[in-house]
Amino acid sequence: MSYSYNDNTWISQQLETLIRKLHAFVGNAVTRNRYIVFGAGSTQILNAAAYALSLDNTSSQSPTRVVASVPYYTLYKQQVEYFNSERFKFEGDAYTWRNRPDDGRASTNVIEFVTSPNNPDGQLNKAIVDGPNVKTIYDRAYYWPHFTPIPAPADEDLMVFTLSKLTGHAGSRFGWAVIKDEAVFNRMTIHMKLNSIGVSKDTQLRAFKLLKAVLEEGTEIFDFAYQTMETRWERLVATLSLSNRFSLQKFNPQYCLFSQKIRDFSPAYAWVKCEREEDKDCYAVLKAANIIGRQGNEFGSEDHYVRLSLVRSQDDFNILIHRLQKLVSKEDGASLREG
Amino acid sequence: MSYSYNDNTWISQQLETLIRKLHAFVGNAVTRNRYIVFGAGSTQILNAAAYALSLDNTSSQSPTRVVASVPYYTLYKQQVEYFNSERFKFEGDAYTWRNRPDDGRASTNVIEFVTSPNNPDGQLNKAIVDGPNVKTIYDRAYYWPHFTPIPAPADEDLMVFTLSKLTGHAGSRFGWAVIKDEAVFNRMTIHMKLNSIGVSKDTQLRAFKLLKAVLEEGTEIFDFAYQTMETRWERLVATLSLSNRFSLQKFNPQYCLFSQKIRDFSPAYAWVKCEREEDKDCYAVLKAANIIGRQGNEFGSEDHYVRLSLVRSQDDFNILIHRLQKLVSKEDGASLREG
Repeated sequence: MSYSYNDNTWISQQLETLIRKLHAFVGNAVTRNRYIVFGAGSTQILNAAAYALSLDNTSSQSPTRVVASVPYYTLYKQQVEYFNSERFKFEGDAYTWRNRPDDGRASTNVIEFVTSPNNPDGQLNKAIVDGPNVKTIYDRAYYWPHFTPIPAPADEDLMVFTLSKLTGHAGSRFGWAVIKDEAVFNRMTIHMKLNSIGVSKDTQLRAFKLLKAVLEEGTEIFDFAYQTMETRWERLVATLSLSNRFSLQKFNPQYCLFSQKIRDFSPAYAWVKCEREEDKDCYAVLKAANIIGRQGNEFGSEDHYVRLSLVRSQDDFNILIHRLQKLVSKEDGASLREG
Repeated sequence: MSYSYNDNTWISQQLETLIRKLHAFVGNAVTRNRYIVFGAGSTQILNAAAYALSLDNTSSQSPTRVVASVPYYTLYKQQVEYFNSERFKFEGDAYTWRNRPDDGRASTNVIEFVTSPNNPDGQLNKAIVDGPNVKTIYDRAYYWPHFTPIPAPADEDLMVFTLSKLTGHAGSRFGWAVIKDEAVFNRMTIHMKLNSIGVSKDTQLRAFKLLKAVLEEGTEIFDFAYQTMETRWERLVATLSLSNRFSLQKFNPQYCLFSQKIRDFSPAYAWVKCEREEDKDCYAVLKAANIIGRQGNEFGSEDHYVRLSLVRSQDDFNILIHRLQKLVSKEDGASLREG
């Protein structure tokens, strides 16, 4: 089995066609007249995008600044810091950057990572830094109808998707980018070549079979996944509605083109806040109740916050709800004892 | 399908066990008390190794210098230059580096890439730079009995292998490193996490099935592959033995532990030299005869050299021999006309 297909490309044209069909069917992204790059999950694609966009800045002496709004997916920071390229530096929170006094800020090259829906809090984030030297990478991993209403097909310059959050096959490591600019596409292709000589053909075959099945079933898989996620979210909201100690992110329902009605969000993660001043380490509070989340500081936030995953097996989810109920039920008792 | 296996690792323990068995069977590498990391082909592994070894040099102000003996596999240079990390710089030829006047050279941190058998010329290279600040990455992609005699099991600190040059499944993108030092292993594991969250499970399953088949057939696959490569090499040697214009690399037969006899080399590539002074662009000379190779300068060499691949379909190889014969047969006529 060669590195390339018979047409001398590294990516399966049939799989690419299928991806375009899928986006057209769901209505979550514009792919006409766009280039598509494959990667080992969105992970590899995000890094390729950061390299490709920072390479634009050859005239600049100072490295490209990489920013993201807090709370942000921690991988952006980790990757930029780890690869430690002379091309880019992680600058932190996009709000802080935007509101900084302008000592050359406006002329600095910037990449803003926008996760929409956001990881960890599920919000339909938009870019907040603008200017002629700002480029955006839209991480659209969760922009599927089982997690969010789809108000319109996404149409950003560079959008990243992944099989992991579509069919759940995280272990197959398959992601793709939809790209407007040919030069950026070419640079990302070179990145994929130098990083791993493209994506495993076994993986591409698996992705092809999965997406084919998704399309053959029409709306069925999306309906099932939405019902599953919506039910989970409602149970979680109901559980924490009894609590004064823990709160959840809130959403404003929106019109969803896919389901053709106004719909609530059904996010992949709960972004839980420990409201009590003394619960500074929310992660430890939940861990004491055997609930394992991810600490707020991983996402650039305070540790009053914890991310809980709602994309897990039904058994694991049931256990999560059960433990949260137990924790919440103790609140009054605790308050009474304290009072 | 999750990111990790049930034992919470990203790499299949069964596949790892099989790899150790295979090395023990072939006798080409020591794996006892060694760590193993998986990657998307040797490509991703080589980069992970460069990052892992350069990270050692935290006390140093200047970046780690990366060297390789000319002719070298061009990817080492391309990767180091592309990723453009503050941690390392590509320095070029290992011989030039070693023979440089010592203005701080001996105290500089160095990584030497050693490809053995070498790509492009098939020689069993050894590291040539030594000192307390020198680390080596042994690219052992071609260290299998179908390409080279196996004089002893390789036992370097960090060795890289790939399925691509073992079973030919380049498109599956599967490689592995055998590592002595736990800290280096841990750093490479982090690299794999930040780069692509490990290796596709579809790929790991494919690699498992292939290596299982290889082991079940005993020496059969290696015997077949050796016969194939040896026959090709002999035909090539015979073809160019009639030429004064083109020459080939030469080998000294060595004792092979695997076949338990003294054996000639049967390399993956021919490293052809255009001997005539005027044939400065050997690539163009061969291309005019419809023979497509890779230019010497890709390997840090002069363009009197071209690499021709011998790992291709039998039909393609036959065509290559045919075209070379035609080219060589014209030599005398040409000399006569010139003379």
